[in-house]
Amino acid sequence: MNIAVLGYGVVGSGVVEVIKKNKNSIALRAGEEINVTRILDIRDFPDSPDRDLITKDPEQIFNDPSIKIVTETIGGTGVAYEFTKRALMSGRHVVTSNKELVALHGPELIQLAKQNGVNYLFEASVGGGIPIIRPLSECLAANEISQVMGILNGTTNYILTQMRKHGKDFNEALKEAQMKGYAEANPTNDIEGFDACRKIAILSSIAYNEFVDYREIHTEGISKITSMDMQCAELLDSVIKLIALSKKAGDKIYVRVSPMVISKTHPLASVDDVFNAILVKGNAIGDVIFYGQGAGKLPTASAVVADIIEIVKNVNANNRYNWERRPYSNVADTKEMETQLMIRTVIRNREEARRFIVNNFGDVRFLNLDFPGSEDQLVFITERNTERNLMEKAERLKGIASIKEVANILRIETE
Amino acid sequence: MNIAVLGYGVVGSGVVEVIKKNKNSIALRAGEEINVTRILDIRDFPDSPDRDLITKDPEQIFNDPSIKIVTETIGGTGVAYEFTKRALMSGRHVVTSNKELVALHGPELIQLAKQNGVNYLFEASVGGGIPIIRPLSECLAANEISQVMGILNGTTNYILTQMRKHGKDFNEALKEAQMKGYAEANPTNDIEGFDACRKIAILSSIAYNEFVDYREIHTEGISKITSMDMQCAELLDSVIKLIALSKKAGDKIYVRVSPMVISKTHPLASVDDVFNAILVKGNAIGDVIFYGQGAGKLPTASAVVADIIEIVKNVNANNRYNWERRPYSNVADTKEMETQLMIRTVIRNREEARRFIVNNFGDVRFLNLDFPGSEDQLVFITERNTERNLMEKAERLKGIASIKEVANILRIETE
Repeated sequence: MNIAVLGYGVVGSGVVEVIKKNKNSIALRAGEEINVTRILDIRDFPDSPDRDLITKDPEQIFNDPSIKIVTETIGGTGVAYEFTKRALMSGRHVVTSNKELVALHGPELIQLAKQNGVNYLFEASVGGGIPIIRPLSECLAANEISQVMGILNGTTNYILTQMRKHGKDFNEALKEAQMKGYAEANPTNDIEGFDACRKIAILSSIAYNEFVDYREIHTEGISKITSMDMQCAELLDSVIKLIALSKKAGDKIYVRVSPMVISKTHPLASVDDVFNAILVKGNAIGDVIFYGQGAGKLPTASAVVADIIEIVKNVNANNRYNWERRPYSNVADTKEMETQLMIRTVIRNREEARRFIVNNFGDVRFLNLDFPGSEDQLVFITERNTERNLMEKAERLKGIASIKEVANILRIETE
Repeated sequence: MNIAVLGYGVVGSGVVEVIKKNKNSIALRAGEEINVTRILDIRDFPDSPDRDLITKDPEQIFNDPSIKIVTETIGGTGVAYEFTKRALMSGRHVVTSNKELVALHGPELIQLAKQNGVNYLFEASVGGGIPIIRPLSECLAANEISQVMGILNGTTNYILTQMRKHGKDFNEALKEAQMKGYAEANPTNDIEGFDACRKIAILSSIAYNEFVDYREIHTEGISKITSMDMQCAELLDSVIKLIALSKKAGDKIYVRVSPMVISKTHPLASVDDVFNAILVKGNAIGDVIFYGQGAGKLPTASAVVADIIEIVKNVNANNRYNWERRPYSNVADTKEMETQLMIRTVIRNREEARRFIVNNFGDVRFLNLDFPGSEDQLVFITERNTERNLMEKAERLKGIASIKEVANILRIETE
């Protein structure tokens, strides 16, 4: 089986490496040998061991009838989209790690694949090498899935772990992540939750068997988290994690990406550094968790190559997803969900502020802060209520003389 | 699609329940409706909602050409084996949760399925509802797998958790597990590691793509573990778990089931109660962990039904495993593996015993025991060496006047 790799970046070169490295065992599992016969990239790689395969001319791939599978590891939604459409329309299977493209144009590309009797597979788009897309769609197929909850972004998880374990502040931890290559020069996509947002959109679409558009997902990042917040969470025997959460209740789908305070006894609390984990709740299986490296060259390549093997083994099997765009939104407002909040305020007058908070929120629990810098801080936990009600009450804190600032509001995981 | 369920016990009745409960979503995923049209059991179930489907006559199934898939949830290797062979030879797919049968007759049954153009699938045989067989064979197919390490038996994990958390002794914890229905009246199969042994044999056969015979696996259970051992592990910031361990090094496969002392920082250490978890090491993906309920009616049924759906979706796809019996053994002697031991002795003369142990073992670390009942105990950690060398040295402790008894020897996880 001849395949072409579009995009010779980190993942693309990893795909070529894995296919070479594990040639024999892959052939055994796939039933035939898999060869990369062409690599498309606009850059020059004079020192690459694969330089003889690299071309700048896409026609060398699209005019070669021996190439039946194309790996799209270009990324983005521009030329990647054009090449993917062209490959599918020419009757070639496409395998990708491109979460942006799947989240944006998944319904069209899946439809196009079906029309052309080929597959569009994207195991590598979520969770790096962690098997999650196929287990969710196949192994848990007997379940109605009610919840998917995950730590889906390694960069932010690394930053939060550094902040918690070593008392670093956000900018310091971010710089370290950049130095180690875990964060990009422009880290917005990771730290503002946009990457996790696309991933939970894809997982939700698989879990509930209906397309969830990432643009409808409420998304918050971690750039506002301070080490003061971390210490407050610690007082609650909890940690702060960037959580992608998706729930199905009746016909409604609630999806949100936001930092959350989660108890140390929660199975996701111990997922540290660049690791990812996904907790799935099914009505037969109960809770199941998938854990591993959510990014990186070889783990992600491993997932891409698994999709390639799957296609080679079942070359006539057809795409299995039913993603259709709807004329109405299927994503409900997460403000309707019940939660508790941890609210951190900076105060001018402690007694007056406490009195106002109690009058305003009713039953709250004030944290007993005793660490340096906490002298002007007043932090409390609200009772459980809808997010809408709680946020309205929090809004009222803003005009109060005794309260200088509402420094942060964090949701607490309460299930 | 009409299917028959053989054996209406816990798992079999769970299969019927899941298929009814999630009828619509299953039909959506499978592409057609799945109906249980016959259930075989020798018992009477006058109060069952499924009583009209239950028959004692297997011919009602084997003479019904509309039944294309048979679920074997009888268990054991007697009549289950006969019915499985008959079903496969009659061109019917077979799906099972029966680990004994897969571990004992897997190669023959897989071969028989291939010859008859049908599938023999057994996702539910390991890890209950946790997706592990298919992820291992498909999602990690691009990897050479070097290690599988798991907590594969919920009963023993529950007992060990009770012993550790509540200071119970083994018999007390076992009785509680029996009262709660987690352990059977005759618990030998679980507590002596035989159940975990069959499961790691199946996982190893999938991971390394060659059949591993469970009868060649060194297997120890947990019945000798005492709360004294638990407290010693605690001194090492560790816990004791029944670990099924399988490693591939070159052509050699090492497989062992035994209690092990594992550090609390190890990802399997926090897997408590009846939960199972499996850690897989691949040369591209690194470490990946699968976690969930390893037993129980609906979780196990969920895995059985997932296999059924897989067959319905790809009714012409063929069995994927290459399990062949070999004229020679492919399982190497685990005594060749390197390890450290925690050796607990009961002593008559502390100073003499210490002197002998140091002379005999060289560099050891004595634990500083300070809990009630530890007055006559001397516990030490050996250096790292092959198990063969360490066990030979431990053997010499037996004839020594200052040492009354070698009470327990436990392996320490050191990677």
